[in-house]
Amino acid sequence: MQRYFVPESSWSGDKVIVKGNDARHISRVMRMKPGDKVFCNHPDGRAALCMILTLRDTFIELLVEQWMEQSAEMPVHVTIAQAIPKGDKFELVLQKGTELGAGAFIPFQADRSVAVWDEKKIDKKQPRFDKIVKEASEQSHRNHVPAVEPPVSSTQLAELSKEYDIAAFAYEEEARSEVHHSFAKVLHETRPGMRMLICIGPEGGYSDREVELFKEAGMKPVRLGPRILRTETAALYALAGISYHLEELRC
Amino acid sequence: MQRYFVPESSWSGDKVIVKGNDARHISRVMRMKPGDKVFCNHPDGRAALCMILTLRDTFIELLVEQWMEQSAEMPVHVTIAQAIPKGDKFELVLQKGTELGAGAFIPFQADRSVAVWDEKKIDKKQPRFDKIVKEASEQSHRNHVPAVEPPVSSTQLAELSKEYDIAAFAYEEEARSEVHHSFAKVLHETRPGMRMLICIGPEGGYSDREVELFKEAGMKPVRLGPRILRTETAALYALAGISYHLEELRC
Repeated sequence: MQRYFVPESSWSGDKVIVKGNDARHISRVMRMKPGDKVFCNHPDGRAALCMILTLRDTFIELLVEQWMEQSAEMPVHVTIAQAIPKGDKFELVLQKGTELGAGAFIPFQADRSVAVWDEKKIDKKQPRFDKIVKEASEQSHRNHVPAVEPPVSSTQLAELSKEYDIAAFAYEEEARSEVHHSFAKVLHETRPGMRMLICIGPEGGYSDREVELFKEAGMKPVRLGPRILRTETAALYALAGISYHLEELRC
Repeated sequence: MQRYFVPESSWSGDKVIVKGNDARHISRVMRMKPGDKVFCNHPDGRAALCMILTLRDTFIELLVEQWMEQSAEMPVHVTIAQAIPKGDKFELVLQKGTELGAGAFIPFQADRSVAVWDEKKIDKKQPRFDKIVKEASEQSHRNHVPAVEPPVSSTQLAELSKEYDIAAFAYEEEARSEVHHSFAKVLHETRPGMRMLICIGPEGGYSDREVELFKEAGMKPVRLGPRILRTETAALYALAGISYHLEELRC
């Protein structure tokens, strides 16, 4: 959904006026009609879901339908499925991913994951994971502490992916093929409130079996820029890209 | 500049045909004319700067003007000016920032930087910094190893910023004001080959003096999403956002 920053003087009760370039963008570029909805951002940092009432090229009147209370939360719920990485990289993903707005994390045991997390290891790690996401949520002034789910297998992850509105996996090789799904195209399909799953492979990449599994489950292969990213960096790119697209961009 | 992914079958010698939705986007949404230029991405991963020859609503013929050789390099040269942070956070910015496509790094001694890097400290740190960016460049298959410049003061940074085509500083407070510059608006102004400076403040934020200094120098305050980010995370958000906008997005 489009988002516009509207100066203080243009807000009056539950009415908002959008003028100038933003109005032209709504009417000419987006070709919106009365009844269509956009987000309007108030200078105080809050955002409102607004419906277009009347519309001229450079003057648009909107009605505030709903104030968005959790302005520090992403408009979509993003779950990062992170292949279990080496060392303490998962902790970096948890900390930085929480700052960047992730809604939940699912570690998964990929075929090429070097580290193996058995139940005993998880029992030891879980309290530390929970502490990291809680502290990172506070640091970034979020209202929601992301869940850190227990690890699953690749097969379980493919099955789980069907419960999401949109599921994608970072896979550069596939992204170069003709029928690739650009990350931007996937993000263009999002609507507020959707649940999204982004899967990040391990250091050694996915196995052929996993790629087939994910594709059969309907997960979309996406590219996260043209450079080769470390597994933990890919998760952060994905979240920053989603935030940029849904929270900052007015194209 | 707009970028379109064009299937193999639409390339013939130095001619490219863009059809369907992408053609409609070029002709109707972007309202381009013959002589205008876009990037066309070949499925093999290379990109070409192309000029529009003839143009109909759903069929556009373009001429390949130049193949972009360094496809793993950002289309703009991004320098991250990072306020000297605590501990080894600067090393994280160097490693992840290089993966994410940064062109250069300038540490700066902000008024509220807790750590102080004197000459002796720098002499000791520099070889390690150089090693980190070199290894990260190799890891991410880049052709360019970013420079790690010697530290400067805030005042020197403001002066330096005038040498860039676009200079911005991450500053949430300002970004909430009525005359804020959205990060997306700044990125819309970029053209291939431009030099861009992005300044990231220290843990405690900028001093009032620094904010004035940067604004007077023409640097644009931008917001990097609605959540409070740690200083090292902000640099990574900025780079991922730039990559997403310039390398992945077709809006």
